[in-house]
Amino acid sequence: MKHPIIALMTDFGTEDGYVGAMKGRILSELPDALVVDISHNIKPYDIRQGAFCLNNSYPNFPDRTVFVAVVDPGVGTERKGIVVKTSQHYFVGPDNGIFSFVTHREGYQASEIMLKAFSEEVSHTFHGRDVFARIASWIGGGKDIKKFLDPLREVVSFLKSPHKNNENEFILEVIHVDHFGNLVLNFQKNDLLGYEDVSGVTLKIKEFELHRIHETFGMVPRGELLLCWDSSGFLQIAQNMGNAAEKINSSVGDQLRLII
Amino acid sequence: MKHPIIALMTDFGTEDGYVGAMKGRILSELPDALVVDISHNIKPYDIRQGAFCLNNSYPNFPDRTVFVAVVDPGVGTERKGIVVKTSQHYFVGPDNGIFSFVTHREGYQASEIMLKAFSEEVSHTFHGRDVFARIASWIGGGKDIKKFLDPLREVVSFLKSPHKNNENEFILEVIHVDHFGNLVLNFQKNDLLGYEDVSGVTLKIKEFELHRIHETFGMVPRGELLLCWDSSGFLQIAQNMGNAAEKINSSVGDQLRLII
Amino acid sequence: MKHPIIALMTDFGTEDGYVGAMKGRILSELPDALVVDISHNIKPYDIRQGAFCLNNSYPNFPDRTVFVAVVDPGVGTERKGIVVKTSQHYFVGPDNGIFSFVTHREGYQASEIMLKAFSEEVSHTFHGRDVFARIASWIGGGKDIKKFLDPLREVVSFLKSPHKNNENEFILEVIHVDHFGNLVLNFQKNDLLGYEDVSGVTLKIKEFELHRIHETFGMVPRGELLLCWDSSGFLQIAQNMGNAAEKINSSVGDQLRLII
Repeated sequence: MKHPIIALMTDFGTEDGYVGAMKGRILSELPDALVVDISHNIKPYDIRQGAFCLNNSYPNFPDRTVFVAVVDPGVGTERKGIVVKTSQHYFVGPDNGIFSFVTHREGYQASEIMLKAFSEEVSHTFHGRDVFARIASWIGGGKDIKKFLDPLREVVSFLKSPHKNNENEFILEVIHVDHFGNLVLNFQKNDLLGYEDVSGVTLKIKEFELHRIHETFGMVPRGELLLCWDSSGFLQIAQNMGNAAEKINSSVGDQLRLII
Repeated sequence: MKHPIIALMTDFGTEDGYVGAMKGRILSELPDALVVDISHNIKPYDIRQGAFCLNNSYPNFPDRTVFVAVVDPGVGTERKGIVVKTSQHYFVGPDNGIFSFVTHREGYQASEIMLKAFSEEVSHTFHGRDVFARIASWIGGGKDIKKFLDPLREVVSFLKSPHKNNENEFILEVIHVDHFGNLVLNFQKNDLLGYEDVSGVTLKIKEFELHRIHETFGMVPRGELLLCWDSSGFLQIAQNMGNAAEKINSSVGDQLRLII
Repeated sequence: MKHPIIALMTDFGTEDGYVGAMKGRILSELPDALVVDISHNIKPYDIRQGAFCLNNSYPNFPDRTVFVAVVDPGVGTERKGIVVKTSQHYFVGPDNGIFSFVTHREGYQASEIMLKAFSEEVSHTFHGRDVFARIASWIGGGKDIKKFLDPLREVVSFLKSPHKNNENEFILEVIHVDHFGNLVLNFQKNDLLGYEDVSGVTLKIKEFELHRIHETFGMVPRGELLLCWDSSGFLQIAQNMGNAAEKINSSVGDQLRLII
C-alpha cells in the first residue's frame, strides 16, 4: 500500500527537538504518513536558500506529496500561512517567498490558512507544529479542510521573469549562489523556445564575457568560467574546478546581459 | 496499517555510521518499524541538551511510540540501562538524567535492563546498537521482554521541583539555555494552579526584575527582557530580538526568585 | 508487510536539495520503499570516510537492503557506476573504492552500470539522482535490470590485506582515523585464526610498543594507549580518555608491525 508522503524542510536544526515535535504531530494526525526529511539545515531565516533547496527536490516526488516548508522569520506577525496546490503537489508554509520557484514554474491555486478556524489555541511561536504540520497531515489524509482555507490571489515571490530588453537581449539576475559558488540565473531552458539558433549566445557580467552554453564543466579548461544548465534546468555560471562567485565577485541580486 | 514507531535521538553525528548501525539493527529485529529521527546532533555527552530536545518532541508522538535516547558518556561503566514506561510512551536509554523531563512531567514505571540476560556477548562500547536498539524493537513488536527487566525504584534526574520559600515565593533554577539564548526555568503552567491572580508576578534575577507573563516576544519593545511560556509549557526568560542569556550573563544552574 | 529498504549515504549535505531529489526519485520509482538515511554529512569527496561509515552500518541491515553510496568526485568522468551484490545485500554507487570494506569482507558479484542503456538523457553532474537512485529502486522492486548491467571482474579498493612478513609478523596499515582519534588497522579478528596463543601480541608503531588486545578502554590507566577491537571487528589503537592519532602523531597510510 502506498503511504501519503509528507516531506519536511526547515531551518530548525534538529538539536532543540522542534523537528521531532513536527514529526510527532504529523504521525499523531496521520498514522500511516511517510515523513521524509528534505533538510533541517537551511541557514536560519534564509528564505532564498530554502526556496532553492525545495526547487531542487520537489519535482522528483510522486504525485500528491505534501511539502511542509518552514523558514519563517515572520512567525507571530501578520504574515499569512498558505497552501499552494499545483497539478501534482501540495505546499504548506508561510507566505514569504519560500515557494517562489514553485509558483514561477507551475500553474497553481493558492489559499490562505485561517488561524481563527482552529478550535483550540494556536501557539504564537510554533506554527510549524501547530498549524502547518496539521494542515499538511489533513491534506495527506484526504480530509475536507475547506473551513481552514480562503482563496488567495497572489503569493509572495522574490523571483522575477527575465526582462526582455529587445528581441535578442535579456536582462537577467543572480537568484542563488550554491555552495560550490555556482551563480544560478532567472533563466530556464524554455525561455529559449522560439529561438532557432542558440549556439552563439553571449553573457556579459562585469568585465567577463561568456560564449555558448556547455554541457559539462569539463568542456572548458580548468579554472575557466562557463555557462551551463543546472540539474533543475536553470542557467548558471560555473567555474571548472573553482568558485565562480568568488572569481567574478558576484552575489544574489546582481544583474547581467544575455545576448542571443 | 499502523507501523510501530521507534524514534531515535543520539549525540553520534551520522558520519561514522553508528546511527546507520542502530537503524539497521532495529529494522532487522522489527521489519515493519517506522524509524523516526529526532536528532543525531546533540552536543557530544550533553545530557541536558538531549533531555530538553526529547522534552520538546515526545509529547507530540502517538501512543505506544518507543523512544531510544543515547547520550551516554558512561557506556561501559556501572551506569544502568533503563526502560521508562509512561501511560503513553516507552523510553529506552542510559540512566543518567536523559529522561529527567519525562519523569518530572509524567507518572511512570521504570525498569533496569539486565545485561546478563542477553544470550550473546554485548559490546562494551556500543549499547546503542546491541542493547537499546534491540530492547526498543522488541517493545515495539510487542514481545515479552520480562526476563531482561528488573523493577527500578528511582531514576536519575537533574530536574528539581521549584522550591517554595513561602506561600507566595518560589526559588527557581535555570535548567536549559536554548540556542536563541532563552533561559528555561523549572516552573510549569500547572505550578500556578491554586493561585487566583497571577497577573502580578515578579521575577528577580541578578539586578533584573521582570513583571507579568507575556504571550509573545513582540509584546515588549525590541531589546527588552520578558517572561513567557515556551512551547512545552515551561516558564522562560527571553529578550525580544535578542539573547537573554548574554544580556543577563546567566547560565544553567543559576537560581532566581519568583514572587506571585 | 515488509517494505523494500533503500539506505542512502552521500556527501551532499542536505541544504541544496540534492538529497531530497534522490529521495523523491526513489519514491516515484518505488512507492512502497522505506528510505533510510545513513548519512549525508560525509566530508565532501572523502571516499575513505564514506567507506568506513558504510562498513559500520551495512552488516546490521536486513537481507535484501539496497545501499546507495554517493561520494563521487569523479562524476561525469570515465569512472564506472557499479552494482555489488553480496549474499545478503546490494550496493549501488561509483567504482572508486567506496565499497572497499564490503568487497574486502564479503564474497560478491560486481556489475558495471551501462549508461547507454538508459532510454532518456542522463545528467552529467547528478548520477545520484538519475542513475544510482533509479537502479537501486528497480533492484528494490525486483525488476529485471539485466540490460543495464555488464559483469565486472574487478572493483576499485583502497584496502590491502595485512602483509605477512613471516609466520609471526604482519605489516599493517592505518586505514581510518575516526572522530575520537582512534586508529583503525587493516586487521580483523579472523586474521588471527590458526594462532593458538594470541595473548602475547606486540604492536610497534613509531617509538610506541603496545602489548595485548584489551576488551575496553577502561582496562588501562587514563591517558594510556591500548589495542582493542572496534565495534566492526577491526583492530584499533585507542587512548583511554584521549586521542591516539594525536598522541602518536599518526594518520591514514602509516605502516606498523604486529608480532604474534
